[in-house]
Parts: sequence; structure tokens; C-alpha cells
Amino acid sequence: MMSPDRVAQCAQLAMLFELSSGPKPGNVDRCHDFPDISFYHFLVSAVSTYPVFRRAASGLGGAGSLILEGAQSWRSWNIGSNTHFGSLVLMIPLAMAAARPGDLREALAKVLEETTVQDAVDFYRAFQLVDARVADVERFSLKDPAFAERLRQKGETLQGLMLLSQGHDLVAREWSTNYERAFLLAGRLAERIGKHGLNEGIVRTYLEALAETPDSLVQAKFGREMARQISLRAGEALRDATLDTAWQMDEELLAQDINPGSTADLVAASLFISLLMDLRF
Amino acid sequence: MMSPDRVAQCAQLAMLFELSSGPKPGNVDRCHDFPDISFYHFLVSAVSTYPVFRRAASGLGGAGSLILEGAQSWRSWNIGSNTHFGSLVLMIPLAMAAARPGDLREALAKVLEETTVQDAVDFYRAFQLVDARVADVERFSLKDPAFAERLRQKGETLQGLMLLSQGHDLVAREWSTNYERAFLLAGRLAERIGKHGLNEGIVRTYLEALAETPDSLVQAKFGREMARQISLRAGEALRDATLDTAWQMDEELLAQDINPGSTADLVAASLFISLLMDLRF
Repeated sequence: MMSPDRVAQCAQLAMLFELSSGPKPGNVDRCHDFPDISFYHFLVSAVSTYPVFRRAASGLGGAGSLILEGAQSWRSWNIGSNTHFGSLVLMIPLAMAAARPGDLREALAKVLEETTVQDAVDFYRAFQLVDARVADVERFSLKDPAFAERLRQKGETLQGLMLLSQGHDLVAREWSTNYERAFLLAGRLAERIGKHGLNEGIVRTYLEALAETPDSLVQAKFGREMARQISLRAGEALRDATLDTAWQMDEELLAQDINPGSTADLVAASLFISLLMDLRF
Repeated sequence: MMSPDRVAQCAQLAMLFELSSGPKPGNVDRCHDFPDISFYHFLVSAVSTYPVFRRAASGLGGAGSLILEGAQSWRSWNIGSNTHFGSLVLMIPLAMAAARPGDLREALAKVLEETTVQDAVDFYRAFQLVDARVADVERFSLKDPAFAERLRQKGETLQGLMLLSQGHDLVAREWSTNYERAFLLAGRLAERIGKHGLNEGIVRTYLEALAETPDSLVQAKFGREMARQISLRAGEALRDATLDTAWQMDEELLAQDINPGSTADLVAASLFISLLMDLRF
């Protein structure tokens, strides 16, 4: 079994590899900052979560409180934004699972099943802290100041909350399917990286993921039809062996402030799985 | 006093901020890989030293053994090269000093003074492990298989070794002057970053450092005259407010495989000092 430090390093590298690869149309990469959120910002938000991943991989803390700790760590560096929030929500349970003996995916299923009402309450606190943008879960508005009380009354666990959101959020869907796509993409990443190297392997996997399933962050901001269009464009970019179409698509999406951030979070989680499974690069 | 984790995070960010800034003529940056050493390579070598910096900032281990541990951590990721060796050698004593109460520079002086013969032996082991390129110290050839025995016979400490090398190596000069330039550049970084933002602030400080003092890695590989020419070019690049000249210089140096790596290590150490002193960015 990996040491907690090694697990935390795999988590860091998953975030940093994802961040550094390009062109990932619409997202921050090595050569493109957003006007308000720079590459440095993402470096800080990745590095500041290291101790939280180490704790998770040491079997300390619940999923909700660890996610909350991660969000709080960003505050301590004066970055209050939600740069890596989706990645954190996907990756904390993986780090917890990596601390357990046996098969990673079986251990993950247990981690998710064991989440409690307190995990749900802590998750909502983290959510409010970073002001993440997703659609409200119908029964639990994020604007509701009494959310903790309502969650307790209903006895809703964090896994239960994710099941309610799985229809419209990629991250929640992973939680609800025991990371079906993330494990699938992790296998693809290993294959694509073996063939094309790290950068192009990551870019191609990102484009494939985006082409297959509309991005839920794009959908929350711009609606279902725009998200579908972006997926069609990603499919076109994939058919260009040179990645020129992907670069062009990148410019267009950045100009319109359209960023498929949920797909980037999913790719980061998949990279984390690959690295935990000893990815060669 | 900062927690050991916070110190380790400052060290990580110093390496990653330095790495990510550009144009830094001749060095890897976000938009330029070396043919044989990629940006990803540097990400791995930065992230893998986190536990070593945490140990240093916990008051555990001597300077030499910590540097050796850092070099060994690169091996465990299958990167045997000397990507961040100079940065490590400069930054480990700073992390050790950050664990002590009082003024950082005074604490640093004590850390350096307290180095032992064993630190010198461990340092040489690390040196051989990464195959770093510097000129040999006259009395202690790095090719000498009996170096440990000879160091012990002479009673040479690590600080003593650095004093012998200060004439031709930027890193050794810092050890020999209690980091005179690194502290000076740390102050400049804070000022330049406040004025120009992180990227341009780092780039301008790098160019200034290079213009002021010929790079010792360039000198070891290409001779004194080439190193002097590169410094003159850096001065010209600084006089161009747009950084266009710096970009052009970057292309030229990369084409000739001339990389002022010692200056980059010095800037990383200066960034570390700035971050330990609560740099605002």
C-alpha cells in the first residue's frame, strides 16, 4: 500500500498534470490564463490541499470534513474561488480509498456508502465557502440558511445528496456510479499517454470525455443546447490528428468565457486513479 | 512561526512559480519544454520533495541528509536528472531556518554554521546520484570514489566545501555569504510582483539577476565569455518594456541549449524567502 505522502503526491500531480496540459478548449492551461483566475492561482489551490490528501490517505477525517478542510485551505492563501472544488470533491474519496487494503474501486464503494449526515452538512458548508456554481438540488436550496437543520431532519447522507444531483452534475454522477467514467477514463489515459506522451494523451482523453458527455458546468451556465454544441465541436477536434482544431476551439471558447470545468475535474480524478495504479509516463 | 506543512507549501510554490514564469530566456517555462526534460518532469521533481521540506521545517535531519533524501525522492518517480538540484541545495537550509524562532537570516546563519562532515559526505552522495554538472572542487574531485574518506580525513564540513566552491558556483556563493543575493532578490521580487504581477515580476527579477552576475551553469558548460555575453543580452532585454526582446532571447538560447539554470535556482530560493516572509500576490 502507498504511504499517505505518496498518495498526496499523486493527488497533487493529477491536478498539476491536468492543469498543465493543452489545448484543453475553454480551460486554463499552461499558455492560457483566465482574466480573473491565473495559472498561479491554480498552482496555489493544488499545493494547499496536500495536507488534506495526506490526512485522507491516513484514514483521518470523514469525506465531508476533508472537503471542507480543502476549501478552507484556499482561504488561508487568500484564494476564495472554486478553482479546484470539483476535483477535490471527486478526489478526496479516492485518497480515502487508497488508504484501505484491497481493490481501489471496492474500497471506494465502501467510502461512499459510509458517508453520513454530518458529511452532507460539512459538504454544504464547503460549498457555500467556495461559492461553487451548480444547479441547486431541488429539495435543498444552497441559499437556505437552515440547510444543516433540514439535512439532519431528512437524515440525508452525502452519498444520498449526490444521488439527488446525478441527473445534472458530472461530479455527482461519479459519486452515484462508484466513479464509472473516471475508472474508464483512467484506463484510456494510460493507453493514450503510452502512445502520445503526457500532454497529448491527456488532451485527447479530455476531448473524448467532452465529446461523449456534455459538460455540466457549461450546461449550468449556458444551457443544455450550448453544452451539446460544445460536445459536437470536441468530436470534430478529435478527428484532426494535428490538434490545430482543438487550439482554434480553445481560442473561441475562451473568448466566450465557456469553460467545460466539470470535464477537467473528471480528467483530474482519472489521472489520480491512473497515478495510484502506477501510471508510467 | 509557520507550520512545517506551510513551509513545505511555500517551498513547492517557489519552485512552481519560478518554473511557470516566462519568458525566462533559456530555461523551461510554461510554454517551452526542453527536448529531453519536460515541464511535467519539473512538476514531479518539485512535488516529490514536499515531505523532505516538511521534515526540514520540523527540525528533523541534517542539511546533507535532507538534500540526499530529496535527490532520492526523484529516483522513486523514475526521474534521475538534476532538474531541481540547485534549488534543493539552496532551499533546504531555508526550510530548516524557518523552523527556528527569531529572524530568518540569523537562523539561517546558524543552520549553515552547524553543518558537519557527515553533511558534506551526504551532499556528495546526493551530487553523484543526480549527476549534477558543476566544476569540481579542486581538492575533492567528484569522480574520486574515496571522497567520503578524504572528506573525513580533512574534517571538511558542508559549509567548508561551499566556501571552496564560491568562486565559480552561484549556489556555493550563497551558502558562503549567508544568502546575500537571495535576500536582496527576495525584496526585489516583492516590489516587482506588487508592480507588475507575478509573472512579469518574476521574469524581470530573473533578468536583473542574470544581467548582474554571469550564470555559473552557463560558465561551466560554455565558458566565461559566453556567460558574460548572456548577461549583456539579459541587460538589453530588461531595457525593452514589452519583454519582446526577452522572448526573442529565449528562442535563441533554447536553440543553442544554453540554460542559465543557476540563476533560476537563485530566483526559486528568493521566491521561497519572499513566501516565507508573507509575499502578497
